[in-house]
Amino acid sequence: MTATSRTSSKTAMLRHLVQRSELSFLMEAHNGLSAKLVERAGFEGIWASGLSIAAALGVRDSNEASWTQVLEIAEFMSDATRVPILLDGDTGYGNFNSVRRLVRKLEQRGIAGVCIEDKLFPKLNSFVRDGAQPLADAEEFAGKIEAAKASQRDPDFVVVARTEALVAGQGLAEALRRAELYRCAGADAILIHSARPDAGEVLAFKGEWAERLPVVIVPTTYYMTPTEVFAEHGFSTVIWANHLMRSALRAMQITASRIFAEQNLRSVEDTVASLAEVFDLQGEDELARAEQRWLPKRNGRRP
Amino acid sequence: MTATSRTSSKTAMLRHLVQRSELSFLMEAHNGLSAKLVERAGFEGIWASGLSIAAALGVRDSNEASWTQVLEIAEFMSDATRVPILLDGDTGYGNFNSVRRLVRKLEQRGIAGVCIEDKLFPKLNSFVRDGAQPLADAEEFAGKIEAAKASQRDPDFVVVARTEALVAGQGLAEALRRAELYRCAGADAILIHSARPDAGEVLAFKGEWAERLPVVIVPTTYYMTPTEVFAEHGFSTVIWANHLMRSALRAMQITASRIFAEQNLRSVEDTVASLAEVFDLQGEDELARAEQRWLPKRNGRRP
Amino acid sequence: MTATSRTSSKTAMLRHLVQRSELSFLMEAHNGLSAKLVERAGFEGIWASGLSIAAALGVRDSNEASWTQVLEIAEFMSDATRVPILLDGDTGYGNFNSVRRLVRKLEQRGIAGVCIEDKLFPKLNSFVRDGAQPLADAEEFAGKIEAAKASQRDPDFVVVARTEALVAGQGLAEALRRAELYRCAGADAILIHSARPDAGEVLAFKGEWAERLPVVIVPTTYYMTPTEVFAEHGFSTVIWANHLMRSALRAMQITASRIFAEQNLRSVEDTVASLAEVFDLQGEDELARAEQRWLPKRNGRRP
Amino acid sequence: MTATSRTSSKTAMLRHLVQRSELSFLMEAHNGLSAKLVERAGFEGIWASGLSIAAALGVRDSNEASWTQVLEIAEFMSDATRVPILLDGDTGYGNFNSVRRLVRKLEQRGIAGVCIEDKLFPKLNSFVRDGAQPLADAEEFAGKIEAAKASQRDPDFVVVARTEALVAGQGLAEALRRAELYRCAGADAILIHSARPDAGEVLAFKGEWAERLPVVIVPTTYYMTPTEVFAEHGFSTVIWANHLMRSALRAMQITASRIFAEQNLRSVEDTVASLAEVFDLQGEDELARAEQRWLPKRNGRRP
Repeated sequence: MTATSRTSSKTAMLRHLVQRSELSFLMEAHNGLSAKLVERAGFEGIWASGLSIAAALGVRDSNEASWTQVLEIAEFMSDATRVPILLDGDTGYGNFNSVRRLVRKLEQRGIAGVCIEDKLFPKLNSFVRDGAQPLADAEEFAGKIEAAKASQRDPDFVVVARTEALVAGQGLAEALRRAELYRCAGADAILIHSARPDAGEVLAFKGEWAERLPVVIVPTTYYMTPTEVFAEHGFSTVIWANHLMRSALRAMQITASRIFAEQNLRSVEDTVASLAEVFDLQGEDELARAEQRWLPKRNGRRP
Repeated sequence: MTATSRTSSKTAMLRHLVQRSELSFLMEAHNGLSAKLVERAGFEGIWASGLSIAAALGVRDSNEASWTQVLEIAEFMSDATRVPILLDGDTGYGNFNSVRRLVRKLEQRGIAGVCIEDKLFPKLNSFVRDGAQPLADAEEFAGKIEAAKASQRDPDFVVVARTEALVAGQGLAEALRRAELYRCAGADAILIHSARPDAGEVLAFKGEWAERLPVVIVPTTYYMTPTEVFAEHGFSTVIWANHLMRSALRAMQITASRIFAEQNLRSVEDTVASLAEVFDLQGEDELARAEQRWLPKRNGRRP
Repeated sequence: MTATSRTSSKTAMLRHLVQRSELSFLMEAHNGLSAKLVERAGFEGIWASGLSIAAALGVRDSNEASWTQVLEIAEFMSDATRVPILLDGDTGYGNFNSVRRLVRKLEQRGIAGVCIEDKLFPKLNSFVRDGAQPLADAEEFAGKIEAAKASQRDPDFVVVARTEALVAGQGLAEALRRAELYRCAGADAILIHSARPDAGEVLAFKGEWAERLPVVIVPTTYYMTPTEVFAEHGFSTVIWANHLMRSALRAMQITASRIFAEQNLRSVEDTVASLAEVFDLQGEDELARAEQRWLPKRNGRRP
Repeated sequence: MTATSRTSSKTAMLRHLVQRSELSFLMEAHNGLSAKLVERAGFEGIWASGLSIAAALGVRDSNEASWTQVLEIAEFMSDATRVPILLDGDTGYGNFNSVRRLVRKLEQRGIAGVCIEDKLFPKLNSFVRDGAQPLADAEEFAGKIEAAKASQRDPDFVVVARTEALVAGQGLAEALRRAELYRCAGADAILIHSARPDAGEVLAFKGEWAERLPVVIVPTTYYMTPTEVFAEHGFSTVIWANHLMRSALRAMQITASRIFAEQNLRSVEDTVASLAEVFDLQGEDELARAEQRWLPKRNGRRP
């Protein structure tokens, strides 16, 4: 199997997830380890979250890490897994030309798609500053989508256009106007984002939008809505956007506090993964077999 | 405070931790987020674990990530925290010259010290392949330590020499011989590693070694030994070597499986850190204040 | 000598160059090799040109390389030299917060100063598109300068504010208004850029500006003006902005063509630097001495 | 054209160059700019020289730059050109496993092949220390070649095995023994290196070796030998190994000295490439067209 066919198949897998009638789920990951765990849990695809990647690095979700630093993380994630990855590409890290470079670099690394949003660079996370964030010029953003689509070499590579119109308080009509512009620009799907505690505005959007393009949602704040509702309304994809990072955060907090207090590992030993599990996830067995194959045997040791 | 004085203080803090008579503890971290959590839990210092960093990246603990990729992670960790970091520098990523470059780069990034071990590059984790790993030539390794010490510009930068003689099954005498060589080469402390389920061999080492130099231990396998034993025997520093990574791994496994099974976030929402906590850890408040200070006010919005 | 005192001395050296009454010269470099050659030629400081770095990488002067990729190049340049480097930081690669990160990262790497310009990210080179480039909001740009100054830890680190008002066709009054805003924001010097074939507009600017702050110029297009004119008018610093890159380009073109045509090295051998010179510039002698010191002697060979 | 077919064609092109009966030439480049110049001069392929890349970065040819730093440079070179690149991969930057990772990363970046040599990591340049360099264990090195071949996904990716046996003074028989081992391990070609001022030993090697596999040579020291001699002896490929870097070095030296002495650009202006040429090489015209296509028109300006 060539690098090509493998990459193609990841993009084809993501395209299928987004386009099929059945609801799809993407689970957040933020590094190679979490990406592997998403895959092992059974998920068909991975959301490489900008917020989670930033948080894991120790920086803010405001493009403090450079786009090539994010790219490198996405590459480690892609190398570690076989299911497709949709990268949260923020605003595209600049203008249409930045987006073109990004798409080509993602394709090389086997990333199956990218989602870009209609805000300004450097971005702010959608859940801070209470919606007072300005949007990008819609026509300029549509140009980014067009440029992204024109740059991809693999026809299955997926470009998702995310509009922040609702989060910015600009209303349903503006959200629909922008989504339609982005559809005409060639987007493969629309991500309609909302920071409300209920799904009302995304359901209203979907009602008006109908089936023009697949619609992706991120129910981080409206998590109480039963998932069947999303299925019934014909959404394409649900993103569980940052919960592995937040889960790791909480667990590490607890473990660090306990070890600090107890000055001992005994009580945490059974609450953490074993080293054997770590080595298994890392693929130590494959390396051991490879050493058998490619290292000279000398006194039963590595040279 | 200048970059300098800040860096110096981190190195001085680590030197103090290693040299004081009271037992010190370093808690593992593997990215900026876990480093912050170690600091917030109250620990005085951080162990930037090679195993954990590799596992988090999704690669093996065999120098699959390049040394500059590891350096970049250490830099994010250092930027995110004020307590000192001791980097697990594996074998030094090459020869004495590689170590010289490493030390200079670590100092620039505010990393307070490095630990290098007497195995061959590329390394294998000490807990795999059952001790059949060859050691570096002791004299060559001592040259690395000398070169490291000669390269540091901040006199407080800490170089820890780790011997794998016990793990490699070469016995106490060889461990002592190597430790003495490394001491003469200028090491600031000796890390004596053991893969046994009990502390017998490290206690034996300490008994013979006495107070020649501070001794650091990593009780990953002999975690049942009460910490008071280490204090009584006069060890300098205990490293809790990989438990935040293993804790995060387990938590993410559970969370991913639950979300996969339930297709909903409701039951995990209260088990994960809140977004508010994430933003707090990221320092969103500082950015908000900075925006007030340095962004022009225009319609109450960012420009 | 510590990293600190060394870094400090680079910043102090650059500050001196910019502030002294005698005219100073910065010569362009774009990688470690060209930086060394600038130093060996006798120059007191280096201009790390954005255009030249981009051209050498093979990309456009439109922020196609990420800011961390540029940072890494600047780091190699700084490691290779003892004279100070002023980095052409384009527009600062984002907003005021991007500039804060940049300043801290530059200080860590021993870069002595940064110049940022009042255009939009991603930037376009000043000599393309015939002056139709929009400028940044002057107040927002002043905020970047303030943020840069507030972020530096070494008081000698130099922040140069570059205005493109003349290049953008906005006239002398606007150039002066902007320069004054940037001065009030804390800039250490003003770079007044011009794309004219004569020095008229920069001389006019200097006449009005007088001695409010040191003024830096880049006579790429008005190179026919005798340098004495700049000295007489009290300019601080002249940047020879891209001539080593352009010199290397021409030489490599000629050499490549000749070797292609002749299918032989004979006629070029005497026109290129010898390998001995290359090794000398790389410091092979230092490594040889270091091997003597830190590698065990065994059969007269490296182990 | 997909990324794949494009990559494939580069590998197929390099395979053709190495395997065809007619003598092929690879010209050294060390960054995106020099790579473009090699292509424009008419060469069919590029040698990404380890020595030149190191020298351009400002470091030594002793693996001071990490393998991912070298990879990034190779990526810029590949992005800038359509002719195939053979990367000088030194010793493979570690063991067989390091080589496997390298091959996969090179394929992703569109690099057409890699050459690895049978010395120890970190390497020393072949032309320093007068041949006293130890060789890698031949069987271990053969394992690296096997691992490289087993890792490539594109069947046309080229792996060249370089033996330093002659340079190390180990004689023709050892060179032939090693070359045969590497051939059996799957190498696509043998690079026989020599540091002699005449071609005697490489011709002797070729005479004994005959046509077992294509043979590549690097006549840096025996440049006086007419190229027809190599053609007559049936060599596959001649590498002009470092002459663009050495040409750039000399030209920059001269230009820097002249500008330093004259404190003016006038006399160098006509000896360096024009800015128009620089912009042309960077592809500014493509960006201008793309702006027309993807940026909204507003007052005839970029938004």
